[in-house]
Amino acid sequence: MSEIEIGPGKRARQAYSFDDIAIVPSRRTRDPEEVSINWQIDAYKFALPMMAAPMDSVVSPDTAIAIGKLGGLGVLNLEGLWTRHEDPRIALAEIASLPEEQAIRRMQELYSAPIQSELVKTRIAEIRASGVTVAAALSPQRTAEFANDVIKAGVDIFVIRGTTVSAEHVATKSEPLNLKKFIYELDAPVIVGGCATGTGALHLMRAGAAGVLVGFGGGSAHTTRTVLGISVPMASAVAEVASARRDYMDESGGRYVHVIADGSVGGSGDIAKAIACGADAVMMGSPLAKANEAPGKGWHWGLEAAHAELPRGNRVKVGTVGSLEEILVGPSHTADGSMNLFGALRRGMATSGYSDLKEFQRVEVVIARG
Amino acid sequence: MSEIEIGPGKRARQAYSFDDIAIVPSRRTRDPEEVSINWQIDAYKFALPMMAAPMDSVVSPDTAIAIGKLGGLGVLNLEGLWTRHEDPRIALAEIASLPEEQAIRRMQELYSAPIQSELVKTRIAEIRASGVTVAAALSPQRTAEFANDVIKAGVDIFVIRGTTVSAEHVATKSEPLNLKKFIYELDAPVIVGGCATGTGALHLMRAGAAGVLVGFGGGSAHTTRTVLGISVPMASAVAEVASARRDYMDESGGRYVHVIADGSVGGSGDIAKAIACGADAVMMGSPLAKANEAPGKGWHWGLEAAHAELPRGNRVKVGTVGSLEEILVGPSHTADGSMNLFGALRRGMATSGYSDLKEFQRVEVVIARG
Amino acid sequence: MSEIEIGPGKRARQAYSFDDIAIVPSRRTRDPEEVSINWQIDAYKFALPMMAAPMDSVVSPDTAIAIGKLGGLGVLNLEGLWTRHEDPRIALAEIASLPEEQAIRRMQELYSAPIQSELVKTRIAEIRASGVTVAAALSPQRTAEFANDVIKAGVDIFVIRGTTVSAEHVATKSEPLNLKKFIYELDAPVIVGGCATGTGALHLMRAGAAGVLVGFGGGSAHTTRTVLGISVPMASAVAEVASARRDYMDESGGRYVHVIADGSVGGSGDIAKAIACGADAVMMGSPLAKANEAPGKGWHWGLEAAHAELPRGNRVKVGTVGSLEEILVGPSHTADGSMNLFGALRRGMATSGYSDLKEFQRVEVVIARG
Amino acid sequence: MSEIEIGPGKRARQAYSFDDIAIVPSRRTRDPEEVSINWQIDAYKFALPMMAAPMDSVVSPDTAIAIGKLGGLGVLNLEGLWTRHEDPRIALAEIASLPEEQAIRRMQELYSAPIQSELVKTRIAEIRASGVTVAAALSPQRTAEFANDVIKAGVDIFVIRGTTVSAEHVATKSEPLNLKKFIYELDAPVIVGGCATGTGALHLMRAGAAGVLVGFGGGSAHTTRTVLGISVPMASAVAEVASARRDYMDESGGRYVHVIADGSVGGSGDIAKAIACGADAVMMGSPLAKANEAPGKGWHWGLEAAHAELPRGNRVKVGTVGSLEEILVGPSHTADGSMNLFGALRRGMATSGYSDLKEFQRVEVVIARG
Repeated sequence: MSEIEIGPGKRARQAYSFDDIAIVPSRRTRDPEEVSINWQIDAYKFALPMMAAPMDSVVSPDTAIAIGKLGGLGVLNLEGLWTRHEDPRIALAEIASLPEEQAIRRMQELYSAPIQSELVKTRIAEIRASGVTVAAALSPQRTAEFANDVIKAGVDIFVIRGTTVSAEHVATKSEPLNLKKFIYELDAPVIVGGCATGTGALHLMRAGAAGVLVGFGGGSAHTTRTVLGISVPMASAVAEVASARRDYMDESGGRYVHVIADGSVGGSGDIAKAIACGADAVMMGSPLAKANEAPGKGWHWGLEAAHAELPRGNRVKVGTVGSLEEILVGPSHTADGSMNLFGALRRGMATSGYSDLKEFQRVEVVIARG
Repeated sequence: MSEIEIGPGKRARQAYSFDDIAIVPSRRTRDPEEVSINWQIDAYKFALPMMAAPMDSVVSPDTAIAIGKLGGLGVLNLEGLWTRHEDPRIALAEIASLPEEQAIRRMQELYSAPIQSELVKTRIAEIRASGVTVAAALSPQRTAEFANDVIKAGVDIFVIRGTTVSAEHVATKSEPLNLKKFIYELDAPVIVGGCATGTGALHLMRAGAAGVLVGFGGGSAHTTRTVLGISVPMASAVAEVASARRDYMDESGGRYVHVIADGSVGGSGDIAKAIACGADAVMMGSPLAKANEAPGKGWHWGLEAAHAELPRGNRVKVGTVGSLEEILVGPSHTADGSMNLFGALRRGMATSGYSDLKEFQRVEVVIARG
Repeated sequence: MSEIEIGPGKRARQAYSFDDIAIVPSRRTRDPEEVSINWQIDAYKFALPMMAAPMDSVVSPDTAIAIGKLGGLGVLNLEGLWTRHEDPRIALAEIASLPEEQAIRRMQELYSAPIQSELVKTRIAEIRASGVTVAAALSPQRTAEFANDVIKAGVDIFVIRGTTVSAEHVATKSEPLNLKKFIYELDAPVIVGGCATGTGALHLMRAGAAGVLVGFGGGSAHTTRTVLGISVPMASAVAEVASARRDYMDESGGRYVHVIADGSVGGSGDIAKAIACGADAVMMGSPLAKANEAPGKGWHWGLEAAHAELPRGNRVKVGTVGSLEEILVGPSHTADGSMNLFGALRRGMATSGYSDLKEFQRVEVVIARG
Repeated sequence: MSEIEIGPGKRARQAYSFDDIAIVPSRRTRDPEEVSINWQIDAYKFALPMMAAPMDSVVSPDTAIAIGKLGGLGVLNLEGLWTRHEDPRIALAEIASLPEEQAIRRMQELYSAPIQSELVKTRIAEIRASGVTVAAALSPQRTAEFANDVIKAGVDIFVIRGTTVSAEHVATKSEPLNLKKFIYELDAPVIVGGCATGTGALHLMRAGAAGVLVGFGGGSAHTTRTVLGISVPMASAVAEVASARRDYMDESGGRYVHVIADGSVGGSGDIAKAIACGADAVMMGSPLAKANEAPGKGWHWGLEAAHAELPRGNRVKVGTVGSLEEILVGPSHTADGSMNLFGALRRGMATSGYSDLKEFQRVEVVIARG
């Protein structure tokens, strides 16, 4: 990427977000029916290249099952309300009705209840019973503590997700998670993130990740920039990690690690752009929080919003636009990219003349003011 | 165009919209009366270098005739309400009165009525009877089905227009339109589009197009970017297609294919910029939807807004500013570029010292924040 | 300037407006009292490097006198209300009270009254009687017709000002103004513009102009971009014309032509930026239209807004902020750059360590988002 | 930095603000507890790398003490209300209740009361009595007049702060401050600013400054750009001064001058960015004006807003968000970067894998639209 001098001795790359780019169709066109958007990671096959973000406003055991049946993968957050409260519906209803000025304080309280090992197992069992692929997420800080429960309960895909997850975490007082050892000993594929650069992603790949999450996800991107000064312009980050994946394939003798865009995927156009930059799939939050079935009841937030000392995200009113089915596979009745997300991806690929996701990663993009 | 690295292995061109550029007068000045803005394509001559977009809010048989008499070319959409309803005025009135939240759903219903072969012929005959040049549009998907009716009814200029039209469409189940064969066998000049790149346009030129439409037109540009992630920054796209046209002239031994900017032409300044980038003429929608006579009654939409499964445009309130005559050739009573569109083009050319459209394609432009 | 390819075969310079740049103090500082902002053109000396724009909302005979006494130069427009109406105060009051939707239409009527030769002479005589330097403006179209009246009435500085004025105007039906001959035969110094490029300015310099106006002035810049697609990013334009002035000094053996920034000078910071880019003085409209004494009574417009067929500017509500004296030389009671304009210039120069205008043209600037 | 041609003969550097950049974590992660954000200048040690700006809305003797006890350094402005009024609480209460249109005029009056030598000593003594490090600020114009009082009263760190302070001030009528001599003879470390470029900073370093303030601080940045045309894009300015500091260390044989970012530090993310660009600490105004204890009672302004002839800043409503303790070290109950500022800095450093401030100056940044 082009390096720019901010001042003498301090250089910076120019980085691009999905909003900065657009896809340009240039070769041929194709019937949408002839386009495949199937996705497979490890032994697991999906009709849609998507994971639902482990956020309480998006994934409950019920919506994990519904999303699975529609062809995606719902990831339950094992550090959210579902493992802290016997009946989280009460807390969810309360959050949906909090006045603005009390929201973060009250959420800090609701999320201070302890995680119960029993509930971890119960929630996973509920999803498992439905027959869909089971995925659940822990932060790196809590992975060691609950991993056994999770595995015993029968998770198919293990997700480790934090604001930033590195393969090399420095801590002298506590014992940090040894990611490489953990993944090596685990029987299930592990998807890890977020990471923001090719270097960071390469370390996660070498630690054995089946997939890496690029970005910080969770709708919290904006306040992470405001609060920490940290930001991941997604188009550049995805392209950089996809490039690291190619390097790693070479060095590993052919192991293909999936690149999953986890952040700034707010509508159907962003899905196409993420793939265009090199992603294999996307992790989505807010588009699914708009479903009639969403546990957030028209509100959306991530765990960061409830951090006890340094909240880095907000409870956002997203409203509802239709059923999970309409949102994922249509039909759509709006023109704002909020419905029929994967019909749109299919049509965008058809319009550009591509027939599968892997090919579509090479589609031409331009940089253009939005 | 300058290539930029978004991330390692993913490059993108920087592309520019009409809003990104401005014309700079630099040589001499000229009396507006001494400027010619005449346009000729094939044997058809026009006082104004413009086509009215085939959209139900803009072109009815009546406004096609009115626009023709004022010196332009109105293109009737043969897949819109006029060929689906015996009296589309009822549907048009209903659309103009729909509450926002029901608009797209109801339009999806109104546009689901079947296209009637008889009405195709009737509408064309109505325009033909007036003596103006007759132009009508079909999408590539329906061209084979209705082309015979259209030809028999006596169309002068045939327009094939879709979101993206390529000379090479891949379909295994259905038989795609063989554009080259179709144009070759047709007796009328064919204008085809939209295309977004020089390569795409070159293919259409080689297929025999008399003119190519650059862009996606129809006021749907914005939601195409939102819904599909696809966008065509028009200044760059027009310049690129104009360049492809020069290449094609050389390879074809001198056949001149017209470049028609079809998108982002929202006011008089955009017309001048389109020509400045290399266009021979513009296709316009929203500026004409603001006419007292416009069938949309102050509303504007394209077929994309009524797509059954994936709407990609909105019904937009544009209001009315004056008569078609005042909008096209003045006089103007506003200073916002919405009236006397071609008086403005004439004056802009005069101020920059150019005497005809072909020369004006070489006027100097700068890139400047709007 | 750096050339960018918009598309193959169409290149454009990146151009900058005053808003795109900022002055950076870097060497030393200086007491404001030790800074000179005197300006001299031909034999005429001014305490302030400014001309008031020939606009009816800004310059009446009374304000021309007041501005002259404060150290500036007020330029009366001889094609405005003052030469079309015996008592323009009635028309001015009406304009100030017109409802928005009728404004342009009614102004088109008020400005359609014929220019009266007698009034041209009367108005100039009124200013002359006060003892201040007398300046008046005509458009190139009317210069031949009224120049004799103007000269006889005793104008000191003659201003020829149009949207674009070129030394080479092409007209076959009417006889265009021969600028070179006109200036040569005239006894008074002539300031001519607007021009937008170094080439255009060089032609005006060769025609004998004492000063050139850079830009289109008149608050009409924005709608000129909207209506005609034409725009002059002022920082680049002033720098380019200042460079042409250096070339012309060399070719003419030392004739120094003044560069006057005429456009986008909306506040005190813009004055400093104009000088920093190479201007000797500025022509200002809207900042003076905010004076208690301004004839526009809180409204501001240029002749362009009243063009009979293609209005290219609006009547804008600017309000009033203080007396002409407070606006030009303070004291200020606001922090928005609308008062004590030249106290601010003086302080900016002091803060940057410069002692006169000519030196200050070399101050360092940066490009920075506003 | 990359030089760009605005026009022939006028070049400008592209400069960046904190809003233009973002930090990208790339190496490893670290526990926040293991991160040090200690700062030491001369013999004075601070738990937090911050100075509270010498503004009446932020620092009173009481808040200087409170900030000192929390680990920062409050700087009292000796030319503000506290040295002009026996009981400034009356004036502060009045300012907080002024209607918008009267604010600047009335503040001009309140700040026209003379500075009383006795009050200078009293205020410093009040802070001194608490045991915290004592810092106070004068402008270069008044330093000679009051320096003796300040030193006698027992200041630990002397701050000289003006819009722009240069080591070489030109004045013929009055005797300007000889900065080098003044600092040499003074027993206390001197922090001087603002400066905007490496050259300017180098001169201040050579004059003996212990620290240099980069920027114009005081929330007045915006109107300084509007009023004077002067602006300091902070990311570039800090990087440039940090580079000058390296040069000076070499030329001085190892004297380390502290670089303190004084401007555009509006929230916690900006603190991290300032350090990332090379700052050792930040000077902050508006974030602290939001404290329950702040003397401005929810309003914020600098001396520039009360300038008698050319106000260059506004009284801004900032509201209150929590206690000084919550703002500086948390816990936070908002996600907008306004609370737990230094917990956020600590976490940002941990997330990026850095363990102290000096290391963190090397963290990778990108340029990205905000």
